[in-house]
Amino acid sequence: MALLLPVSNMLCSSSIATGAAAAPVPAAAVGANLGAFRSTHRGRRADLSLRGFGASDSRAQRCFPTRSKSNLIWSASASVKEAAPVAGTRSDEGGKKKKVMIIGGDGYCGWASALHLSKQGFEVAVVDNMCRRLFDEQLGLQTLTPIVSLSKRVKRWKDVSGKELAVYVGDICDFEFLEHAFKTFEPEAVVHFGEQRSAPYSMMDRSRAVFTQHNNVIGTMNVMFAIKEFAPDCHLVKLGTMGEYGTPNIDIEEGFITITHNGRTDTLPYPKQGASFYHLSKVHDSNNIAFACKAWGIRATDLNQGVVYGVHTDETSLHEELINRLDYDGVFGTALNRFCVQAAVGHPLTVYGKGGQTRGYLDIRDTVRCIEIACNNPANPGEFRVFNQFTEQFSVNDLARLVTKAGEKLGIEVQTKSVPNPRVEAEEHYYNAKHTKLVELGLQPHYLGDALLDSLLNVAVQYKDRVDMDQILPAVSWKKISAVPKTVIKAE
Amino acid sequence: MALLLPVSNMLCSSSIATGAAAAPVPAAAVGANLGAFRSTHRGRRADLSLRGFGASDSRAQRCFPTRSKSNLIWSASASVKEAAPVAGTRSDEGGKKKKVMIIGGDGYCGWASALHLSKQGFEVAVVDNMCRRLFDEQLGLQTLTPIVSLSKRVKRWKDVSGKELAVYVGDICDFEFLEHAFKTFEPEAVVHFGEQRSAPYSMMDRSRAVFTQHNNVIGTMNVMFAIKEFAPDCHLVKLGTMGEYGTPNIDIEEGFITITHNGRTDTLPYPKQGASFYHLSKVHDSNNIAFACKAWGIRATDLNQGVVYGVHTDETSLHEELINRLDYDGVFGTALNRFCVQAAVGHPLTVYGKGGQTRGYLDIRDTVRCIEIACNNPANPGEFRVFNQFTEQFSVNDLARLVTKAGEKLGIEVQTKSVPNPRVEAEEHYYNAKHTKLVELGLQPHYLGDALLDSLLNVAVQYKDRVDMDQILPAVSWKKISAVPKTVIKAE
Repeated sequence: MALLLPVSNMLCSSSIATGAAAAPVPAAAVGANLGAFRSTHRGRRADLSLRGFGASDSRAQRCFPTRSKSNLIWSASASVKEAAPVAGTRSDEGGKKKKVMIIGGDGYCGWASALHLSKQGFEVAVVDNMCRRLFDEQLGLQTLTPIVSLSKRVKRWKDVSGKELAVYVGDICDFEFLEHAFKTFEPEAVVHFGEQRSAPYSMMDRSRAVFTQHNNVIGTMNVMFAIKEFAPDCHLVKLGTMGEYGTPNIDIEEGFITITHNGRTDTLPYPKQGASFYHLSKVHDSNNIAFACKAWGIRATDLNQGVVYGVHTDETSLHEELINRLDYDGVFGTALNRFCVQAAVGHPLTVYGKGGQTRGYLDIRDTVRCIEIACNNPANPGEFRVFNQFTEQFSVNDLARLVTKAGEKLGIEVQTKSVPNPRVEAEEHYYNAKHTKLVELGLQPHYLGDALLDSLLNVAVQYKDRVDMDQILPAVSWKKISAVPKTVIKAE
Repeated sequence: MALLLPVSNMLCSSSIATGAAAAPVPAAAVGANLGAFRSTHRGRRADLSLRGFGASDSRAQRCFPTRSKSNLIWSASASVKEAAPVAGTRSDEGGKKKKVMIIGGDGYCGWASALHLSKQGFEVAVVDNMCRRLFDEQLGLQTLTPIVSLSKRVKRWKDVSGKELAVYVGDICDFEFLEHAFKTFEPEAVVHFGEQRSAPYSMMDRSRAVFTQHNNVIGTMNVMFAIKEFAPDCHLVKLGTMGEYGTPNIDIEEGFITITHNGRTDTLPYPKQGASFYHLSKVHDSNNIAFACKAWGIRATDLNQGVVYGVHTDETSLHEELINRLDYDGVFGTALNRFCVQAAVGHPLTVYGKGGQTRGYLDIRDTVRCIEIACNNPANPGEFRVFNQFTEQFSVNDLARLVTKAGEKLGIEVQTKSVPNPRVEAEEHYYNAKHTKLVELGLQPHYLGDALLDSLLNVAVQYKDRVDMDQILPAVSWKKISAVPKTVIKAE
C-alpha cells in the first residue's frame, strides 16, 4: 500500500516565501502536549522542563507539526509553558562550567556533541525544533537505529550520567524564541548545527530549495544578531561543509587563500563553488558571518566539515536510549554509512557514475572532539576563523572497496553497481584539501579502519529488519528539480 | 511635529521570517483600486491593464500596502482582475520584437531601462510590487523629483511614444504570481532589478537585514526556477553590484580569476567580500545563479554595477510625467547624486571619514545602454557570465572636488565636511577594477564631465524646495544595528 504525503504546505517558512497563507491552527488542535514531560523510570522521576516561549505569543506559531485534513502544517505550541530554569552543572559541581548552547542538538552530529560536551563538564543546552524528525515523517523515512524522543533521551542521560541538559524547543528563525533562549541560558559558546543539512532534500523541489536557503541563512543571521545583542562575547561555532569549496583544480586551503595577481598580493576568502542549494546556503552563511565578525567584532569559527560516518560515541553507547540516528536513505544518508547498510541487506553498493568523487571524511567520534576543541579554543573578538574538519580523503570507489573487504571478513558478499549520477558534479577530479588546524589544537584522529567498519557493519546487520529497500536508491535528481511540489510515495 | 511610523510589521517576508503572524486584511479594506486604470489625456484614452493574479488567491495576499490602525501592513490586492493581454509591439509593427521582462521596472534604474528598451523596439513588461515607494512612505522620505504613479507613467509613455508597456504588479517572492507573469508574457530576457537595493536600509535593524536577504535571495531563486520551468531559453540579466568584491588589495577581475597555487592553476569565482547585508545578498545571488547555470543549463549575465549617477535619459526627458526618481537621503541616496543635492541646498558635502573610498561609477544613460547590450548579446546556454558595469573610478574626495568646481561655475559656494563614517569600510585603499567586456560589446561611455554635473546641479536647484534637510545626514550605523525594530521619526 502506498502512503501519499502531500507536502505543499508543510513548511511554514517555505509557505511564507511562496506567499501561501498557512491557516493558523487552534491551540486545542495540537496533538502532543509538549509542555513538561514527566515520566518515571526504575522508580526515579525525572522532570524535563521545556523552556522557550509563552503560550500566547503569535511568533511562536510555527514550531510543531500537526495534521489538518491531508496536509501537515506548522501550528502553535500553545501548551508550552514557561518553566523554572533547570539547575546547571555549574552549581552542582561547585566550579564554573562553560555554558554551550547546541542548536540542532537532537540531530545526528548535534546529539552526539551534546552528550560529549556534557560528559566533559560543559553546561549544555539543546535547542531544536525537531524538524529533522518531521522530515522523516513527511518523506516516509526512518533512521536505521531506533531513536527515542528527545525528552526520553535527555531523561536517560540524566539517569546515566547525573548530568542535566537544558532543552529549548523552538525555531531559531523565530527571533523572539531565540532571544528568550539566549537571555535565560546565557551561552558562552553556541554550536550551530541547526540547519537543513541534506543536499538532496534541497534539490527535491522549489519549495524545499527555498526552505533550505531561508531556514539556514535567516536562522544563522538570527544567531548572529542574538550574539551581538545579548551575548557579545559568545563564541559562534558554526558548522559549514567542505562542500562549500566544490572541487577546484588547486589545493583547498582552510578558508582563505593568498593570491598574487598582477604583481600585488592579498589574502582573500577561498573561492566557493557550492553544488546544491544546501551547500550554497552554507556558503551564504560563511559570507554573512565573516562580515558580522568584521563589522561587529563578534568571534566565530566556521567548521567546514567533511562527510561524517559512524554511529556510536563513548556517550551514545552508554544506553540503548542514547543511541544516535543513522540515515541510510537516498535523501539523508551519506556515503559510507549508506554503503554499510546496503552491504548488510545484500543490496549492491550504489556508486554514483564513475565513483571518482573524492571528499574529506571523518568519524563521528572525531566530530564531537572537534566541537570540544573549538569550544575550548575560542576565536578572538572580531576573528572569523575557518577550520577544515575532516581527517582523511576517500573517493567513492575507495569506500566501496573498503566496505567490500570488510564485508568479506564478516562473511558478507558485497556487490558494487554504478547508478546514474543524480547530481551535477565532476566524477573524476583533483582533490587535495588542507586540514591541519584542528590537529594543531589537539585532535587525534580515529582513522577509518577495520574496527570501525566491522562495528558499523554489525550495527547495520543488527537493525537490518528496519531497512526500507525502497529508500536505498537515489530519489532526487539535480536536473529534474521542478517548481511542482514533490509528493513522496513510500511503499509499505 | 514628529510623525512616528511603526515598522515592526511592515514587511510580510520579514514578519514571516521572525515568526510574526501578519493578520490578513479583508479585501474591502484595501484602499486603492488597482484593477484597471482608465484615464483620458488630450482626448485619447489609454487602457492600462494590470496583469498578474486573480482576486481569490491567498498566495497573492502580500503585494499592496494598506493601513490597519497604526501599522502599515501588506494585504490582498483583491480588486485586481485578470485582464486580456495587452497587444505587444511584435504584431503592431509586423516584425518580431524581443520580449524583455524588467523586474523592478518602477525603480530608478528599472524605469529608465524599461523606457529605453521600449524605445529601442523591445516588447517590455514591467514587473514591480511597488515596495520602493512603500519604503519611502514608511521612512518619511521622498525622491527629489516628483514622480507620478506607475499607472500614469505607463499611460504617459504610450501617449508620448505610441508604445505599450505590459504591467504586472506583484511580488516575485510569490511564485504563483511570477509563474503567471512568465506564462502570459513569455519573456526571452528577464532583467532583474527587483531587489531591496540599499546598503543602509539593510543595516537599519535585524528585521530589515532579514527582509533584504530573504527578499533578494528568494526572489532571485524564484526567477531562476521560473526560467528553468517556463522559459528555459530565456536569458537572465541580473543586476549585481561592484560592492560584491569589496576592496581587495589586488586588481578586481570580471567575475573570475585565474589562480596558480602550489604549482597548479584553475580559474575560479573571484573572492567576494560584501560589506553589508545588502551587498551580501547579491553575493548569495551570484553564487546561486552560477550553480543554476551549471546544473540546469540556463543562461545568465551578472552585471556587477557601480554607483549610478544622473537622473535624465533621452526617454525620461520626453515628458515631466516620465521623470525618474532621484534619491538624496541618507538611506537610498548615493554618493554623487547626494552631493549635488547637498550643494544645491547649501549643505556641506558629507564625506564619510577620510573620503578615500574609491568605487566604480556610471551615468544612468550608460546603465540603460548596458542593459540593452546585455539583452542583445545573450549568454550561451549554461553560461554564467559576469560583466563589471561601470565606466570610471572615483574616490569620494574626487567627487567632492568635482561638485565643488561645478558649483563655482553656477555661482554656488560648496563646502565639504567630513562626518563620522557610519559604515565599516576601508577609507584609504587600493582599487583597480576591470571593466572592458561591455565596452567590447559596444558601450560608448558618457564620462563624468561638466555637462552632466551642470545638469544634475540644475535639477537639484530646480527641486530644492522638496528637500527635507533632516534626511541629509547618514542615519544608519553599521555597528549600532540592533534587533530592536527601528521606528523612524520624520520632522515636518
